[in-house]
Amino acid sequence: MPNQKMYEYGSSPSKIREIFEYGKKRKMEIGSDAVFDFSLGNPSVPSPKIVNDTLISLLQESDPTILHGYTSGVGDLGVRESIVNYLNNKYQTNHVAKYVYMTVGAAASLTISLHALLNEGEEVIVLAPFFPEYRVFVEKAKGVLKIVKPNVLTFEPDLDDLVNNLNSSTKAVIINSPNNPTGVVYSEETIKKIAEILKAKSLEYNHPIYLISDEPYRELVYGDIEVPFVTKYYDNTIICYSFSKSLSLPGERIGYILVSEKCEKKDQVYLAVSGAGRALGYVCAPALFQYMVPKCLGYTSDLSVYKTNRDILYTCLKEYGYDVIKPDGAFYLFVKALGSDANEMVERAKKYELLLVSSDSFGYPGYIRISYCVSTKQIKASLLAFKKLIEDYKNEE
Amino acid sequence: MPNQKMYEYGSSPSKIREIFEYGKKRKMEIGSDAVFDFSLGNPSVPSPKIVNDTLISLLQESDPTILHGYTSGVGDLGVRESIVNYLNNKYQTNHVAKYVYMTVGAAASLTISLHALLNEGEEVIVLAPFFPEYRVFVEKAKGVLKIVKPNVLTFEPDLDDLVNNLNSSTKAVIINSPNNPTGVVYSEETIKKIAEILKAKSLEYNHPIYLISDEPYRELVYGDIEVPFVTKYYDNTIICYSFSKSLSLPGERIGYILVSEKCEKKDQVYLAVSGAGRALGYVCAPALFQYMVPKCLGYTSDLSVYKTNRDILYTCLKEYGYDVIKPDGAFYLFVKALGSDANEMVERAKKYELLLVSSDSFGYPGYIRISYCVSTKQIKASLLAFKKLIEDYKNEE
Repeated sequence: MPNQKMYEYGSSPSKIREIFEYGKKRKMEIGSDAVFDFSLGNPSVPSPKIVNDTLISLLQESDPTILHGYTSGVGDLGVRESIVNYLNNKYQTNHVAKYVYMTVGAAASLTISLHALLNEGEEVIVLAPFFPEYRVFVEKAKGVLKIVKPNVLTFEPDLDDLVNNLNSSTKAVIINSPNNPTGVVYSEETIKKIAEILKAKSLEYNHPIYLISDEPYRELVYGDIEVPFVTKYYDNTIICYSFSKSLSLPGERIGYILVSEKCEKKDQVYLAVSGAGRALGYVCAPALFQYMVPKCLGYTSDLSVYKTNRDILYTCLKEYGYDVIKPDGAFYLFVKALGSDANEMVERAKKYELLLVSSDSFGYPGYIRISYCVSTKQIKASLLAFKKLIEDYKNEE
Repeated sequence: MPNQKMYEYGSSPSKIREIFEYGKKRKMEIGSDAVFDFSLGNPSVPSPKIVNDTLISLLQESDPTILHGYTSGVGDLGVRESIVNYLNNKYQTNHVAKYVYMTVGAAASLTISLHALLNEGEEVIVLAPFFPEYRVFVEKAKGVLKIVKPNVLTFEPDLDDLVNNLNSSTKAVIINSPNNPTGVVYSEETIKKIAEILKAKSLEYNHPIYLISDEPYRELVYGDIEVPFVTKYYDNTIICYSFSKSLSLPGERIGYILVSEKCEKKDQVYLAVSGAGRALGYVCAPALFQYMVPKCLGYTSDLSVYKTNRDILYTCLKEYGYDVIKPDGAFYLFVKALGSDANEMVERAKKYELLLVSSDSFGYPGYIRISYCVSTKQIKASLLAFKKLIEDYKNEE
């Protein structure tokens, strides 16, 4: 009786959520310290102190009818100005506040952008492995999902396969670097090549192919890695940002869409973004969290914990014999599945109380994802389990 | 190039927003005290003290990684339990937490419910005059909007016209009582009759017709008026609630959907709600504001200000000769347009710095809406302008 497709989306939750729910149950049975839950990308490091300090002082010092009142549908102008000032200063760009649209987090940024751009049947290219909800978001916007293979050595996109997948129906390409689920950061060279390809194909098909850059992990990189800022390389870029990961605020739902000031027909695109936000029921992004943004730009949660976790896990898993993709950012490790089936490995790992996610969900089979945004104590405690798991497979050979 | 329909929604903002923007400009020119801005339903009374107290103590006392972390997609279970306990106690109902879905406010509640229920081309009945965004929300969910006329004496729905508009394609009826824009509260008798009609027609067409009850103004009633709680009268009810108006939090976006425990196929409906929320990009409702809810249930902003405003305006406008619909709730007065054209009246009112909204936007011409959620000082200061406006029309006769 209700809409069948919505019913299916509701009744088959993501595999990630499924294993997370298993974990919750298991923790009740044997205690939370005994379960090594690497399923969910829920930041374990608290927000930087300035977040709660700013929220409290806003609550104590602002006129409540203004603080909690409607902002403009596109977001408070002062907040949007602070965002472009920050970006322009950091990346030497010239973005303007009038092309920033405040959103209820990255998922909203993506759905609004897709509904703004797509006409029924137009194609959206995603680069495997990719965040599984992209499929749901593209389908709901009546788009057609096309999947580009990765280069299996670097887990950057296979650019020949990108070229093969582009055609006159391609409306947009979604990139996500630092990447979920691999932790890979696309190099400047890769971004430049993607830009070249899309420019040439836009010319060939005589319409812009938009690059949607999903960037919740932009600040989560380790060592001296730089994340290329995409609008510098490709004009028809729409940035979808969220403060969920950088400020450890995933439950608060605050982010933004930035239409590049160099985007073709940027006013039309921005108005379509604003119209899609309206039609999907996003009246405005939460006001208190909007007003928090200007004071917290440039801050991140303490990333040293994630770096320590990554270093321990990467080093130890390699030593035990796992085949691990080199991770420069986000808080995920991507590991080649033991045996021939990642799903079987996920099941077997449960014997050792290790909760992993199969890469099948990410549109690319044969790997598992480890979300290492947990305490370092948990990481250390889990090492023996990882060792036993690979020995279990070795004993079979 | 972007989606044409989304572009149109973005480039033709609502008439209400348009006059609000005019007001902002005008206030800059002549000072905000000199402009009588009755355009927007933005609460002027601050939140009850317990709201900010609760938010601050949550921020000071909770583990930040839990406080700001993801909740379950449908909302925190404890929060949902507190909501049904409150409702069941207040209305002697038997609702259950597992059919509550936390949302980012009333607009999200409505869009999610519509996307959950509708298949392309199915009809949704709205009762004129109605909140203009209903049209946008229904269209975006691929539904067809059907408009039922009001009884012009009471501004309750014309039930014969409701019967005329029902057919085998009707999927849902949206009601909104206390009503925006009229301030009318539907009587128990009206709700009973609507329920009878929908029951009979559901039987006749052999499928449930859902009643979507949009209730952001549920607590905003004056005197000893009771708002009938709709699930007691009709089983296939979906309540769309928001704390925006009762707690003066319109910018914070917090509300819920309640699928009645008596609804046919309630599990399927609820899963479709959950799936639609997922597909539209609503990951979870803002966590901090979810956790605020249990402590603030049953509280409202100080409604005495709205009552005073209503009493002054209603009495004085009647005395001046205006034809005013009797308002029992919300914070709107609905007034018969002077002259033959409400839009012309809205323009002429600007001469007296009165900012009103034409009822054309609400699917029913010939009236104007006054949002009296402003300070009582403003109400008093505006009276002379209302007097001059009607004299202006009288001098013409």
